[in-house]
Amino acid sequence: MAGQKFILEHQVNYYECDPSGHLSLSMLVALMILASEKQNAQLGVDEHVTKELGGGWVIIDYEGHFQREWPKENEQIKFETAIVAYNKYFVVRQFVIRDYHEQIIGTVNGLFVYMDLSKRRMAKIPEAIMTPYEAASTLRLPKVARPDKVEATDEWRENHYQVRYFDIDYNGHVNNARYFDWMLDTLDHDFLLKHQIMEIRMNYEHEVRPQTEVNSMAITIENNAHEWTTQHQIWVGTQKCATATIKWR
Amino acid sequence: MAGQKFILEHQVNYYECDPSGHLSLSMLVALMILASEKQNAQLGVDEHVTKELGGGWVIIDYEGHFQREWPKENEQIKFETAIVAYNKYFVVRQFVIRDYHEQIIGTVNGLFVYMDLSKRRMAKIPEAIMTPYEAASTLRLPKVARPDKVEATDEWRENHYQVRYFDIDYNGHVNNARYFDWMLDTLDHDFLLKHQIMEIRMNYEHEVRPQTEVNSMAITIENNAHEWTTQHQIWVGTQKCATATIKWR
Repeated sequence: MAGQKFILEHQVNYYECDPSGHLSLSMLVALMILASEKQNAQLGVDEHVTKELGGGWVIIDYEGHFQREWPKENEQIKFETAIVAYNKYFVVRQFVIRDYHEQIIGTVNGLFVYMDLSKRRMAKIPEAIMTPYEAASTLRLPKVARPDKVEATDEWRENHYQVRYFDIDYNGHVNNARYFDWMLDTLDHDFLLKHQIMEIRMNYEHEVRPQTEVNSMAITIENNAHEWTTQHQIWVGTQKCATATIKWR
Repeated sequence: MAGQKFILEHQVNYYECDPSGHLSLSMLVALMILASEKQNAQLGVDEHVTKELGGGWVIIDYEGHFQREWPKENEQIKFETAIVAYNKYFVVRQFVIRDYHEQIIGTVNGLFVYMDLSKRRMAKIPEAIMTPYEAASTLRLPKVARPDKVEATDEWRENHYQVRYFDIDYNGHVNNARYFDWMLDTLDHDFLLKHQIMEIRMNYEHEVRPQTEVNSMAITIENNAHEWTTQHQIWVGTQKCATATIKWR
């Protein structure tokens, strides 16, 4: 892992677990973001600093692989994070999630873009905010694999979710972790109880806005006796906002 | 505060805050429950022990009063809890929430009943599980004030919420804190942004079951220029599951 490392230690609480007794995906993502924000703050380049420069980080893709059983209540886990590479507009940040015995639970790479907040478009990353990470600037970034390209058909399940007050953060944006709850809740609940995520590829295309209704579409495909793939799409009206491919064991 | 005390320290994380930037009510309740469960475990009488005896604690009422502005991201807070009194079937547990300067943010009393889990009815609290708390057994418990007795009319707002997979804990029950999200989300979101809770009285009548749809009803009453009262009811079909009265400043 290149660049300055930061470690967030965390004990899993009962209310962070799903009905199967494991840490939920949306909580895992919330904790990853917490680790990255704590590192940004430690290095003196938190969101207040980027905001003063008129910019901010927006997540585009996650690619995650999970080797071990997902953590349960009271388990001590740690999130190690670093920026592994960056170029003019993008940053690849890695998260390694370990248990108390240093065994890797999972590894997630995230592709972030730097945005000009007033113009709502990509902007060149100011060199000053990258220096503290001591990460390598490269022309070619490591790949963060995208979800499968699939079209939803009539066979897909479909659930509608009104964006709620508590889905919104204090910047007025829908919390990125919330998308995972909409995606997974659309699957069969009995399937969720009995299976665990081994791989996830998630892409954010458009922001889900407050006061809108989300259409979450999903399908489960059985690959063989021990592996399943689920495909996910989040729509608001005629706009596709996010897609994901998840593999389960 | 009578009885053995337990203190849970907590730093407020960004994803625990609502759009106004303050710790959400459901997170506050989740942290209260966490503090009580950590005390139970510390005293050797956690849910595994009560389960072996065939019983468990169920919340009936909360009464809370808040003096200070609600905590924000990164604020260090602490939850002090103790059982203040109990009788044959009931326990009153107090939570005092303080900031880093020991100033009281709020105080919440909770009335819990001991249930026979197989018969799904009240049961006599085994003396063995109360001894470690060193609390006073009394015939008359301190009062935990109930919500106002009001009937919902056509003027009340009404929202429907499907119980989601992630609303359920690993015992198969809807997380008690979730009721607060359904109650508050039904209010005007602009009202929620601008006001803070100063008093809450909450009563749980019947359990909301997984796979059901909740009807959350609410009305806002202006008491004077600086104070508002909201009334809340949670229904599943023709069964009233919970009620609350909340005062705001």
